[in-house]
Amino acid sequence: MELTLRKIANLLNGVIQGDESFTINSLSTLKDGNSGDLSFLANSKYRKDFDTTKCGAVLVDNSIKSENSKLNLIIVADPYTSFAIILELFERSGAASRMGREEHVFIDEDTDIGVDSYIGAFSYVSKKVVIGPGTQIYPQVYIGENVEIGEKCTVFPGVKIYPNTKIGNYCTIHSGAVIGSEGFGFAPQKNGSFKKIPQLGNVVLGDHVSIGANTTIDRGTVSSTRIESGVKLDNLVHIGHNVSIGKDSAIAAQAGIAGSTIIGEHCMFGGQVGIAGHVEVANHTQIAPKGGVMSSIKEEGRKLLGAPVMDFNHTKRVWVAWRKLPEMQKKIELLETVLLGKR
Amino acid sequence: MELTLRKIANLLNGVIQGDESFTINSLSTLKDGNSGDLSFLANSKYRKDFDTTKCGAVLVDNSIKSENSKLNLIIVADPYTSFAIILELFERSGAASRMGREEHVFIDEDTDIGVDSYIGAFSYVSKKVVIGPGTQIYPQVYIGENVEIGEKCTVFPGVKIYPNTKIGNYCTIHSGAVIGSEGFGFAPQKNGSFKKIPQLGNVVLGDHVSIGANTTIDRGTVSSTRIESGVKLDNLVHIGHNVSIGKDSAIAAQAGIAGSTIIGEHCMFGGQVGIAGHVEVANHTQIAPKGGVMSSIKEEGRKLLGAPVMDFNHTKRVWVAWRKLPEMQKKIELLETVLLGKR
Amino acid sequence: MELTLRKIANLLNGVIQGDESFTINSLSTLKDGNSGDLSFLANSKYRKDFDTTKCGAVLVDNSIKSENSKLNLIIVADPYTSFAIILELFERSGAASRMGREEHVFIDEDTDIGVDSYIGAFSYVSKKVVIGPGTQIYPQVYIGENVEIGEKCTVFPGVKIYPNTKIGNYCTIHSGAVIGSEGFGFAPQKNGSFKKIPQLGNVVLGDHVSIGANTTIDRGTVSSTRIESGVKLDNLVHIGHNVSIGKDSAIAAQAGIAGSTIIGEHCMFGGQVGIAGHVEVANHTQIAPKGGVMSSIKEEGRKLLGAPVMDFNHTKRVWVAWRKLPEMQKKIELLETVLLGKR
Repeated sequence: MELTLRKIANLLNGVIQGDESFTINSLSTLKDGNSGDLSFLANSKYRKDFDTTKCGAVLVDNSIKSENSKLNLIIVADPYTSFAIILELFERSGAASRMGREEHVFIDEDTDIGVDSYIGAFSYVSKKVVIGPGTQIYPQVYIGENVEIGEKCTVFPGVKIYPNTKIGNYCTIHSGAVIGSEGFGFAPQKNGSFKKIPQLGNVVLGDHVSIGANTTIDRGTVSSTRIESGVKLDNLVHIGHNVSIGKDSAIAAQAGIAGSTIIGEHCMFGGQVGIAGHVEVANHTQIAPKGGVMSSIKEEGRKLLGAPVMDFNHTKRVWVAWRKLPEMQKKIELLETVLLGKR
Repeated sequence: MELTLRKIANLLNGVIQGDESFTINSLSTLKDGNSGDLSFLANSKYRKDFDTTKCGAVLVDNSIKSENSKLNLIIVADPYTSFAIILELFERSGAASRMGREEHVFIDEDTDIGVDSYIGAFSYVSKKVVIGPGTQIYPQVYIGENVEIGEKCTVFPGVKIYPNTKIGNYCTIHSGAVIGSEGFGFAPQKNGSFKKIPQLGNVVLGDHVSIGANTTIDRGTVSSTRIESGVKLDNLVHIGHNVSIGKDSAIAAQAGIAGSTIIGEHCMFGGQVGIAGHVEVANHTQIAPKGGVMSSIKEEGRKLLGAPVMDFNHTKRVWVAWRKLPEMQKKIELLETVLLGKR
Repeated sequence: MELTLRKIANLLNGVIQGDESFTINSLSTLKDGNSGDLSFLANSKYRKDFDTTKCGAVLVDNSIKSENSKLNLIIVADPYTSFAIILELFERSGAASRMGREEHVFIDEDTDIGVDSYIGAFSYVSKKVVIGPGTQIYPQVYIGENVEIGEKCTVFPGVKIYPNTKIGNYCTIHSGAVIGSEGFGFAPQKNGSFKKIPQLGNVVLGDHVSIGANTTIDRGTVSSTRIESGVKLDNLVHIGHNVSIGKDSAIAAQAGIAGSTIIGEHCMFGGQVGIAGHVEVANHTQIAPKGGVMSSIKEEGRKLLGAPVMDFNHTKRVWVAWRKLPEMQKKIELLETVLLGKR
């Protein structure tokens, strides 16, 4: 695929600094690129790579000045989002959508599989499953009884979907994800053993939900575990039973949400965050990586850090003092000696 | 399925407050329920939902008084366990046990597969495998050579079981779990590379063991990694090689136990807990979520919190002070200025 | 397999204390062994097991004296590595390499599959895949288009490899690992939703790389996520997109490396470590379990502990003081009362 800077600038409502007839034929990072490559600068950490890049053209915002007069720039409002648009062009030019049904599939009776869909080899489609038009089921996927999957979803190889799960439209589920496994519900008995609590509910995903590789989502006990539209879950995330995650929230890798917790809309959680069970987290809450939440977050829009979490800036200050704890301890002892004659 | 309150109360040794001929036909949370639903109240956090529930009947203990005279109550000793019993009734009425062997299975020579068992499509049963009567092997499962699985186990889609694993009776293994993978054993060499330590042992599970989705259990180096009877592991848990977990212990999601560690009986670990290798943890130890254990816990029955863990209440007190660290630091400086004339 | 101590000592350049004609026929831990077993002592924690072992012979270094005159010892420089060599002998004597192609495989057109390789049932090999000689692809593996796998690799059951991944020689990939999944790249939009950033790069593994069960490695956005030769990843590890991990580094279970981070050579990270995105970690960095890294580690060879990490010994000192925080707080209050008349 070849694109002139003129074409790219038109597409992005950008302003060219340099040669508008210059042609790029691939995309790259600033560091690895060559003269035919387009790249972008969106994070000041990469300024040094920008100054030494061999890329032919770079998307930048209007705060960036270049010393390199040979480098072609396209000035846009949001270089990251603009680069994503160009990535999509290249993605579409490369990808041929899969269609049809391969050999070695197991499709039970009474299923409803939409047009223009794809079912890969060694996939298993149980009774009463509904699959929407244009949805791609890659090889080695398991779809339990009575599952509904909307249109234009992509279910990558090896995903396992338990019975009664409902999945909206335009969802992406990565390899190894498990949707609808049994919640961790055991009632402790007097003799010290555990009695299993049957889990009869299901999992419901909205539209445009993305589920990362090897992520697990447990089904509800009697109602649904709900992942609302636009939610993005990274890899190896755990979502407990009866949890609800509000729309357009994003949760990074290896974070876990314990059972029956309710997460608001537009929340963003970093990697390895843990949220206790049976709490509520307000809309627009941001939690830095490794944060631990033990009780409900009631006020919207807080930025939190630490385990247990506190306001981001407060935890930062605590950490500064924390590094000096041994010194503080000695000072206290000295003060005691001087003032109280201890020791 | 329909049940009168009279029937339910008889089953649970409960006392009815309300209409004993009232009939329920499904189960629900307090919040989502309708008039035909039975629910339960076991956690005071949900008192508000109880006061406004639309459910027709609720299981409670005798500490609960209701303002709502229309609401039917059944008073029982342990509402959570009682609800589990009713859940089981509904589960049994809904589930038809699978039986037989589907198309597209790979079964090697010299296997011993019990009566009334089920082997799903695309599953792979290696040489010398023994599968007990009534055990269900869902689709896309891999069972390595010389594996033994007891009776009435359920192995969900996509589970991978390495050679020589021994599994007891009545075990449940959820999708994507990997049992018997190679332990992380590498001897550092003088040139900075690692020499792999072959892992020739296996994994042994007792009876009534439950393994969560995408959990991994490594096999022993020369002996066995042991998961004793009644142990419950949640999703995405990691159990290192040569570990032993005592009976009726429960480990929540994303917790990890490093190699050669010995966990006692009746332990309960929260989510994201980490236990170092080569330590011992006494019986009845409870560790709150995100706890970190770096050395052996010798005394039984402790409740621990924090990373590194300390007694639950002590860590709670430390956290209270921790929030005030910047303030404490300033106070020390002031005291120094006043007393010692510093600054 | 039977070996005399003479043969073992010759193989290991060891010195026998005891009966050189003594024969062992299996391997064991010190604790579980019997008279026909060889074991080893490499960690002083197991000294007690050594003193009471029933094993017939033990590999030790020259610091060890035994009270038990019946016990045969072989003195070697590095008992752990020496034991690994004997383990390998036993492993090789037991294992028959698999070869050929089982029924029920899906192999697309235009593939290049080397001699002496194995493709297990229900595995899926896409177009333009290259598989080197002697490589073993176990059942239920998915290999996407244009993937290259070198020679003598072992890919265990259920591994999923996305398109364009390049894998070197002598690599081991354990069950459930996902290589090349889409990076977690979403540009936040003004309306609060996320725009997906297409991920067009790939994953490149060097030689002798080992990947643990259910570990996930995301592909680069436009370039490659790189795992250099000799790297060992344990189970349930997450490697974000665009990450690079230098040669002979080892990362324990449940650790996570966020996107675009560059890890040096010969690093060792404990379990549940988390490294932020867009940072660099110098060669020979060691991070204890649960450590959290928020910014670049520039100096080589540091040993780090804590979240956030500090020098190992400093964090140890901070933890000692940390346990006394409530006490420190009271002392400060007392000093204030005495000196300043507060309260």
